[in-house]
Amino acid sequence: MNEVKKKTVVLVSGGVDSTTCLAIAQHEGFEAFALSFNYGQRHKAELEAAKRVVKALSARDHLILDLPLDAIGGSALTSGIEVPKDVPLEEMQGRIPVTYVPARNTVFLSLALAWAETLKAADIFIGVNALDYSGYPDCRPEYIESFEKMANLALKECVEGRMRICIHTPLIKMTKAQIVKKGMELGVDFSMTHSCYDPDPVDRACGRCDSCILRRKGFAEAGIADPTLYAP
Amino acid sequence: MNEVKKKTVVLVSGGVDSTTCLAIAQHEGFEAFALSFNYGQRHKAELEAAKRVVKALSARDHLILDLPLDAIGGSALTSGIEVPKDVPLEEMQGRIPVTYVPARNTVFLSLALAWAETLKAADIFIGVNALDYSGYPDCRPEYIESFEKMANLALKECVEGRMRICIHTPLIKMTKAQIVKKGMELGVDFSMTHSCYDPDPVDRACGRCDSCILRRKGFAEAGIADPTLYAP
Repeated sequence: MNEVKKKTVVLVSGGVDSTTCLAIAQHEGFEAFALSFNYGQRHKAELEAAKRVVKALSARDHLILDLPLDAIGGSALTSGIEVPKDVPLEEMQGRIPVTYVPARNTVFLSLALAWAETLKAADIFIGVNALDYSGYPDCRPEYIESFEKMANLALKECVEGRMRICIHTPLIKMTKAQIVKKGMELGVDFSMTHSCYDPDPVDRACGRCDSCILRRKGFAEAGIADPTLYAP
Repeated sequence: MNEVKKKTVVLVSGGVDSTTCLAIAQHEGFEAFALSFNYGQRHKAELEAAKRVVKALSARDHLILDLPLDAIGGSALTSGIEVPKDVPLEEMQGRIPVTYVPARNTVFLSLALAWAETLKAADIFIGVNALDYSGYPDCRPEYIESFEKMANLALKECVEGRMRICIHTPLIKMTKAQIVKKGMELGVDFSMTHSCYDPDPVDRACGRCDSCILRRKGFAEAGIADPTLYAP
C-alpha cells in the first residue's frame, strides 16, 4: 500500500539554494507544490530556470504568481537602480545591499501561507541562508521563527486546531559549498539553475554581482565545476 | 512654517471600517498613502468605493495592486463557493465563515510593509475590528502584535535602526455603531462606501451577507440612517 505523502509548499526561485531546498523536501518524503513569483525582477531568466528545475524534479504542481513589486520599487532588482558589481566578500557581509527588495520574503511567505492553507499543507520550505548570503534581514533565523509564530495566529486552520505551520529552512546554516554538495548528492543538475541578478540580453550570467560571486565561491570551495554560462 | 507630516500607509478596502480608519489616521496628523488590492474578489464594487473615499478624503496617493489570490482560492470571496446569507449574529460570532480568505491580512500587511519601507513610513493603519466582525483570526489583537514583531525583524530600515514599524488598529475594540459614529464625527460620507460581499449586477448590496448584516446593525445601533442602496 502506498503511504500518502505529506504536502509541502516550496518557494522556488530557480537558483542554487531554492533548487537544493526543493530536492531536500522531496528527499524527506514530502509531496512538493512549488511556488514562484513573477515580481517585476530584472532577472526574469530565473523564472525559466524555476520551470526547468520544477519539471526535472517532478514536483506535484508549480504555481507562478504575478506580483507587481515593481510598482512599489525600492530595490535594484525591481527598479532602475544599478546592480553593484565586484563587491569584495568582506564588504558584502557587512551591509545590506541595494539588491535588497523591501519585505520580499514576508510577501513570498505570506502567499505561501495562503496556498498552504488551501492545500491543507502544514509545511513550507524556503531556501534561505544566513551564512554565504547578501545580508538580507529576512533570511535570518530570528526572522523566520517570528514569521512562523505569526502564521500560527493568522490562519483559520491553525486557530481552529487542525494544523500547525512549520517553516523549514534546511540550508540556513550551511555554506554555499555545502549546499552545492548536498544538491549534487540529491541529483540536482545545477546547469538548469540561474543565480545572476543582472544577466546579459541572452541570459548569460554577469559573474560579478553578489549572487554570481557567492555562486562561484560555492562551486569553487566544493571543488565542483560551475556549469554556469558566464558572459565574456 | 508648515510642519512636515509623518507618512503612513493605510489599507483601504472601501468599506465602513477602513474608510473610518483612513479618516482617523489623517485626523491624527498623518499624511496618508492609501493601499488597495484587486485580488480577484467577487465584490469588485469595493474598489470603486475605495477610489471614491480616497479621493474624497484627499489622501496623498492611492496604490491599487493586482494580486491573484483567486489563483489560490479557498474562499467564497475568490472562488465559486456561495456567500452565506441570513446567518444569525450569535452563529456568526461562533465560527470562522467560508468568506475567510486564506492569509489575506498577512498578504495585505506584507505589501503594506514593502510600500512603507520604500516611503520611509514607520506607521501602518489597518481597520481591523475584533468585536462586530466575522471571526477572522487575522483581525485579532494577538495576531496584529505578532505581525508587528515579525515586521521589525524583516525590514532593512528596522534592522539598521532607522525605523520601527507600528501597526495602528484604532477600531480593534470598537463596536460597529461606535465606528459609524466616529466616521460621522470626522466627516466621512458613508454613501461612498461599499460593504456587501455579494452585490447584484448593478452593485446594489444584498443586505443579507455577514458584511451587510454587521453594517446594518452598526447604523441601526448608532441611530444613523444607512445610506446604502440595497437590492429589493
